[in-house]
Amino acid sequence: MTTEFTIRFLPHNKEISVAEGDTLIRAAIEAGVHVNASCGGEGVCGKCRVIVEEGSLEGGISEKLSAEDQEQGYRLACQSLIKSDLVVRIPVESEVDASVLNMQATPRCTARIQEMDLEELKEKGLFVPPVEKKYLELPEPNAQDNLADVTRLVSYLKANYHEHRLDVDLPVIRKIPDVLRQDDFKITATLARPVHEISKTRIINVKPGDTTNRNFAIAMDIGTTTIYGQVIDLISGRVLSQHGEFNGQISYGEDVISRIVFAEKPGGLAKLQEVVIKTINKVIEKIVKRAKIDPDEISTITLAGNTTMTQLLLKVNPSYIRRSPYVPASTLYPPIKAVDLGMALGDHVTALVYPAISSYVGGDIVAGVMGSGMYRTDALTLFMDIGTNAEIVIGNKDWLACAAASAGPAFEGGGVKFGMRATKGAIEDFSLDPLTFEPMNMTIDNVRPKGICGSGLITIVATLFEMGVIDNQGKFNPDLETTRIRQDDGVYEYVLAWKDETQIDRDVVLTEIDIENLIRAKGAMYSGTMTLLSEVGMSVQDIEKIILAGGFGSYVDLEKAMTIGLLPETDPDKVVFVGNGSLMGAKMSSLTNRIRKDVVEVTKKMTNFELSETPSYMDNYVAALFLPHTDLNNFPKLKARLESRKTMLQ
Amino acid sequence: MTTEFTIRFLPHNKEISVAEGDTLIRAAIEAGVHVNASCGGEGVCGKCRVIVEEGSLEGGISEKLSAEDQEQGYRLACQSLIKSDLVVRIPVESEVDASVLNMQATPRCTARIQEMDLEELKEKGLFVPPVEKKYLELPEPNAQDNLADVTRLVSYLKANYHEHRLDVDLPVIRKIPDVLRQDDFKITATLARPVHEISKTRIINVKPGDTTNRNFAIAMDIGTTTIYGQVIDLISGRVLSQHGEFNGQISYGEDVISRIVFAEKPGGLAKLQEVVIKTINKVIEKIVKRAKIDPDEISTITLAGNTTMTQLLLKVNPSYIRRSPYVPASTLYPPIKAVDLGMALGDHVTALVYPAISSYVGGDIVAGVMGSGMYRTDALTLFMDIGTNAEIVIGNKDWLACAAASAGPAFEGGGVKFGMRATKGAIEDFSLDPLTFEPMNMTIDNVRPKGICGSGLITIVATLFEMGVIDNQGKFNPDLETTRIRQDDGVYEYVLAWKDETQIDRDVVLTEIDIENLIRAKGAMYSGTMTLLSEVGMSVQDIEKIILAGGFGSYVDLEKAMTIGLLPETDPDKVVFVGNGSLMGAKMSSLTNRIRKDVVEVTKKMTNFELSETPSYMDNYVAALFLPHTDLNNFPKLKARLESRKTMLQ
Repeated sequence: MTTEFTIRFLPHNKEISVAEGDTLIRAAIEAGVHVNASCGGEGVCGKCRVIVEEGSLEGGISEKLSAEDQEQGYRLACQSLIKSDLVVRIPVESEVDASVLNMQATPRCTARIQEMDLEELKEKGLFVPPVEKKYLELPEPNAQDNLADVTRLVSYLKANYHEHRLDVDLPVIRKIPDVLRQDDFKITATLARPVHEISKTRIINVKPGDTTNRNFAIAMDIGTTTIYGQVIDLISGRVLSQHGEFNGQISYGEDVISRIVFAEKPGGLAKLQEVVIKTINKVIEKIVKRAKIDPDEISTITLAGNTTMTQLLLKVNPSYIRRSPYVPASTLYPPIKAVDLGMALGDHVTALVYPAISSYVGGDIVAGVMGSGMYRTDALTLFMDIGTNAEIVIGNKDWLACAAASAGPAFEGGGVKFGMRATKGAIEDFSLDPLTFEPMNMTIDNVRPKGICGSGLITIVATLFEMGVIDNQGKFNPDLETTRIRQDDGVYEYVLAWKDETQIDRDVVLTEIDIENLIRAKGAMYSGTMTLLSEVGMSVQDIEKIILAGGFGSYVDLEKAMTIGLLPETDPDKVVFVGNGSLMGAKMSSLTNRIRKDVVEVTKKMTNFELSETPSYMDNYVAALFLPHTDLNNFPKLKARLESRKTMLQ
Repeated sequence: MTTEFTIRFLPHNKEISVAEGDTLIRAAIEAGVHVNASCGGEGVCGKCRVIVEEGSLEGGISEKLSAEDQEQGYRLACQSLIKSDLVVRIPVESEVDASVLNMQATPRCTARIQEMDLEELKEKGLFVPPVEKKYLELPEPNAQDNLADVTRLVSYLKANYHEHRLDVDLPVIRKIPDVLRQDDFKITATLARPVHEISKTRIINVKPGDTTNRNFAIAMDIGTTTIYGQVIDLISGRVLSQHGEFNGQISYGEDVISRIVFAEKPGGLAKLQEVVIKTINKVIEKIVKRAKIDPDEISTITLAGNTTMTQLLLKVNPSYIRRSPYVPASTLYPPIKAVDLGMALGDHVTALVYPAISSYVGGDIVAGVMGSGMYRTDALTLFMDIGTNAEIVIGNKDWLACAAASAGPAFEGGGVKFGMRATKGAIEDFSLDPLTFEPMNMTIDNVRPKGICGSGLITIVATLFEMGVIDNQGKFNPDLETTRIRQDDGVYEYVLAWKDETQIDRDVVLTEIDIENLIRAKGAMYSGTMTLLSEVGMSVQDIEKIILAGGFGSYVDLEKAMTIGLLPETDPDKVVFVGNGSLMGAKMSSLTNRIRKDVVEVTKKMTNFELSETPSYMDNYVAALFLPHTDLNNFPKLKARLESRKTMLQ
């Protein structure tokens, strides 16, 4: 249990609860309180000076503060660890400063994280692992009873467990003669339950002795960039370990299109399949080791990925995915022996691959819909997976519609001059002094900035827009009195951090071109949502719940995402974040056959809209190429803030 | 159509119909007429002199005949090709000769060969190939209709052919994108029909264009010694080609026990599997070439073999087959991808392996039971597969019981001094001059003798017994006046051919030890039959039909086999020969799913008796270690012949 303390910021008079040991600057940004800070929180710029009026801290003293400053209670916010309730004053130059500061930026607001509730799953009958182990003490054969080994096993299960419909896999037939005789015909049999009642239970493995307490599954997300895997304990339902590795295919192309192009070369498809399996095996090795289990104790694996990743994994030519009219080879895939795909797992393991909907709404999205429980709710839900290829699903338990929008790589740091993945040194949070336009940069791991990650980009652009630094077309106001706005080669840019405050010995800037790219990305996303809504005769107001999935969604500031018009403006409480929806769905399928059965129905139910073939899409897209949108009336809260700010500054 | 001629032999006055071009000596042996002949029919001993009294021949003239002889009508029977009806006199020394000859040996009598009747199969609904091809012209995709390729195919089959339950194999998913686009979405789909109505039809292959008229299957018998394969046209039901190769495993042991011993060595099992697949692939290559088809046009393969051969084929440790209480790994085997076993066939081909009953009643016997139709008849039927391991099945459509008797290798030429397989130079037929005890040896391909094959051995021993040369314990009568009976190293033997009449520059003899071995072999077989009959409360008189299967059964002289007590004495018309029952059953399964379904029921229905665990077996066995048996009353016809002969010679 973590102890929480209350921090009150003056002159704003904003209070926030934070955990013991957090830095004061993180508390400020959570509260929406601006403190100048250029160095990302590393403590070298010395700008984040605050005065501690009540309570005690650890640290915060630096050579950047004179002895006099220190005596007056000045501390560096980024170096101060919270150890008690505090009252902290942000130094301002004037009363105007204080009042402007006081009205500005919304507090940081991220989505509630929706996690799987095991107890709820059990209650709803959704915890029925597809693979079950039984310990059996079989009678030993003798001259009067010399049934075949398999017949002995099957008859015993029939007589003692009413298992009347059993199939036996060849690997079991291969193992059974020796396994039976290793421990006096005491064995543990692994039974794979059928997804459909009409089908048979399969005996997939036999081991000597009692191993019923060791039954594990692997869930895996085959991402274009990263492959994540989890080991799941099928008895407790808990995740025992997790690990991600960059998809080895990256060397053959960053995005799905370049992978497809590579796959079209002679030997390319086989190469990409080989390479993804290599990464998968690396992940398996790591998670199995971390979970302290033997790879042979894995009973099943479920994988989800986008349509291209899935076809490459299964060595299915993806060529027609990238060519109009964008036809995938299949949506459903049969269960496949993991060893046949080259996976370093036992020969008893069947790999289940999530079905896809279309070329650009893949198994990762279906997995997200299944894992998030969206397909079981009454509430009209908007599911968004934000990434290079942004996928949108709208619906509930009765109907589902989906579409994919090509957002481009801006959300993942691509097409942005200093864009980078959300790793150490990426500016992930930002605020702006409304009078001096000095920034507050917070980086991942509190080191000097190297670049900007996706969630940082959204916050920066939203803040610049709300503070009037850029207009609703993303163009800089050249009249502001700050050296941070400048022109380079005819392109306006904002200097986030000066050369000597960065790790890269160059100024870290945000250019108008970067902003244009972001606007196009969010425009694709938003207009996709609007098009889908109008196709099904709904509007933003009908949405009862928003589920965000995807790599960057957990840290994104919801208010900021609404400010730029990435998300429709709504009550942030309606928004939940499920993280890696693909992985979550894969995990759910490992835990219950019910999902494996339902997913086929969901796949049939989900209507795919090709945005490029939907006439209203282009209009919606053009209208969305503004901050937040041509029609500000759909963003009433933002509209009110912008008007209040205008009034304030007049 | 062959022309038939009638040959009348004098002084016996026996008539027989033979085909144009047959040799006179073959006609004689068929008729049960003795002519001295030592050289197997090669024409070098010059002993088979006959006088042609009416009709014309081709050949028959030899330097062994003087000009005078020739003028008198003498010909060498083995060199005379029949071209018309004939009257032929066998020269005898006296009236006694003539009368004795006249009463002796029964005419050659082999079993009627039962072949598959396609028309009957069709009438009975037993010609429903498990694999079907459909030519389809699919609509091409466009922007408004961009269904996945597989969905397009499945939807089309659903809409146009009411195929509502379809599964699609991964290889089809891999092929479909390119195949569809090769010939404007005109394709031929291969559908594998389920054995059980409850299961789904699987789409196993797709090809561009219309290939519906090319649909083939392979049936294969995996024998311990020889692997036979057939290509079957699934449209006409006809066998297009057939070929046998020695099982490559022979290098690792002649019989199943030595193979099992080898499989127990490190790497042994894998080696034997690899080697049998190599032979299988050799057979496939040959039969596919002979049938003038492409290996990729094969849609399915069915294999049958004994339990050990089956386990080795599937790489299942056979160790416990040879150890008490003789437990096989499994009786049923799941369908397996042919490529997974290493077979040189398309990845769409599923290999179906015939189920076994027990360690020594294997899939070859089950295949025989299925192929012969025994399991569908009302008549009480005795099925015997005669070989080293002799298997016996008794029953009809309501019940089936089986047992295996270890006969030893005598029937296949093993444990017999000059025993050999039924190949060129093996004495396969024999008769004896009842006064001079001179032999008539007929060899395969009419060349000088090299040894004795199984059917020859039976005929020789039966003849020696009936002629009083050996007694009912197989012991030679040392008082007979002939140099052909002699002792060598204390063991009596009969000289079949003198050194200079053979190919091997040694006398070819039959020893008392050889006869003992044959008696043990036939004793095991007969007592197995008797034991099984008594266990089910039946007797020999209840048997309405006997089905002989196995490599040597086609040529065996039924009356001779009854004379030695290998078969119960019965009307030879009740006996049919099905040849390679294993191959026949495999072929039947290729032609119809009905058999594939029935076989599981048959397997369940068939009760296995372990003879070693059946108390009456040993008594039956000891009683059967005589010619034909301790109790001659079960062989009334033979008894009558023996008595008549006794009277004649008195």
